[in-house]
Amino acid sequence: MGRIYTAALCIIGDEILSGRTQDRNVAQIAQWLNVQGIRLAEVRVVPDVEEKIVKAVNELRDENDYLFTTGGIGPTHDDITVDAIAAALEVPVVEHPEARAMLENYYARIGGELTEARLRMARVPEGADLIPNPVSGAPGIKVANIFIMAGIPHITAGMLEGLTGTLEGGNPLVSETVGAFVPESEVADMLREVMKRYPDTAIGSYPFFKDGRVGSNFVVRAEDGEVAKRCANELAEKLDTAGFPSVPGGI
Amino acid sequence: MGRIYTAALCIIGDEILSGRTQDRNVAQIAQWLNVQGIRLAEVRVVPDVEEKIVKAVNELRDENDYLFTTGGIGPTHDDITVDAIAAALEVPVVEHPEARAMLENYYARIGGELTEARLRMARVPEGADLIPNPVSGAPGIKVANIFIMAGIPHITAGMLEGLTGTLEGGNPLVSETVGAFVPESEVADMLREVMKRYPDTAIGSYPFFKDGRVGSNFVVRAEDGEVAKRCANELAEKLDTAGFPSVPGGI
Repeated sequence: MGRIYTAALCIIGDEILSGRTQDRNVAQIAQWLNVQGIRLAEVRVVPDVEEKIVKAVNELRDENDYLFTTGGIGPTHDDITVDAIAAALEVPVVEHPEARAMLENYYARIGGELTEARLRMARVPEGADLIPNPVSGAPGIKVANIFIMAGIPHITAGMLEGLTGTLEGGNPLVSETVGAFVPESEVADMLREVMKRYPDTAIGSYPFFKDGRVGSNFVVRAEDGEVAKRCANELAEKLDTAGFPSVPGGI
Repeated sequence: MGRIYTAALCIIGDEILSGRTQDRNVAQIAQWLNVQGIRLAEVRVVPDVEEKIVKAVNELRDENDYLFTTGGIGPTHDDITVDAIAAALEVPVVEHPEARAMLENYYARIGGELTEARLRMARVPEGADLIPNPVSGAPGIKVANIFIMAGIPHITAGMLEGLTGTLEGGNPLVSETVGAFVPESEVADMLREVMKRYPDTAIGSYPFFKDGRVGSNFVVRAEDGEVAKRCANELAEKLDTAGFPSVPGGI
């Protein structure tokens, strides 16, 4: 079915590691990548420490077609992503003239001064292009195979919007979900049997508790939507026959 | 102030990487670790692929005092955490007699059969101890410096509860938060000044949009609660003086 494109995500932020902030970027970026035909292969969350960022960035960019980073591109002292990624790439940090112009326009429009701190947001690793930011002034940055995004999820969403359709990907992975009020342990053998008959699919089994009842959702993933559908239908029939009425789309 | 204890978290799960499931374990485990005097130093999310799990587990357990894993300890074909961690430690997988007894009791109580699939949940890397699971039948597992936890957040919460106070830690990192309706770029220099005067603290700056207004929360973290408080107070005074009324505890 052609080659598989992968991306990694490096989340840069003490606020995630301290438990202060609930991450929302993993799910958001994963879902966006699926649509581009790119699979999220690994995520790392690292602290605001340059050597940790450098190590993670270099490992992840080597192992994947694309690397996304979130966080650490603001104007304050703890925003060190640009410096760390420049260090990882062994290039200097330079001021990007277009980024400077964007910031000048933005602060002129909202009536603020372009202070030295704010100008930090025009700094990029040498050779970088900009990723438009439709929400606030500071752009994202693309350099080598790295996409440097904001930490605030709705700003990242705006940047992703602008990147839609611009990355080379493979066939999007499609999924079909079947749910039933059955403990997954009750149907583990059934799952194994179905899996064997559909080697080009992966079936995930996700137990839950809902309204005091135990149940499971089974997610069939495949590159070929027809294959995923056939596999999910067969699983649904087997669940029905075993006395666990299946719910298309999951519970 | 004594040595710093660190932990890493390895989240094992295609459901997180596919964007299907919103992770809740990072924040939950981070907050629990803070109370134990242990810092969450890194998180990785890896797919349900043995070699990827082995690599992440071996790197993270070497670099940290503790490694927590979540996910992949259920009864189905995609639950391969125990096998992967045994492979990482180069020990065989064995059946743990107490885990078997727990499962026997659990399924006798809820009126189910202890099938071969369910018995998979009694398998542990050789030399492991069990972590009680007050919510459902299958226990967590402790082996070497690795704590193997459930993927479902409220089951993990129950396991953490049982581990509270049992891990050697340092001084808990305490934090004081000050908020203000000010763009962080407006006070970046102020933050730098305050930081210089309090070298034993870290100040995180977290911008937000709320009710149509731009603001920032500033989180001061330190091992010494008095130092954190003094630093936060000084920052609050400076914000007030600059015309941005500070809100203790953040916005």
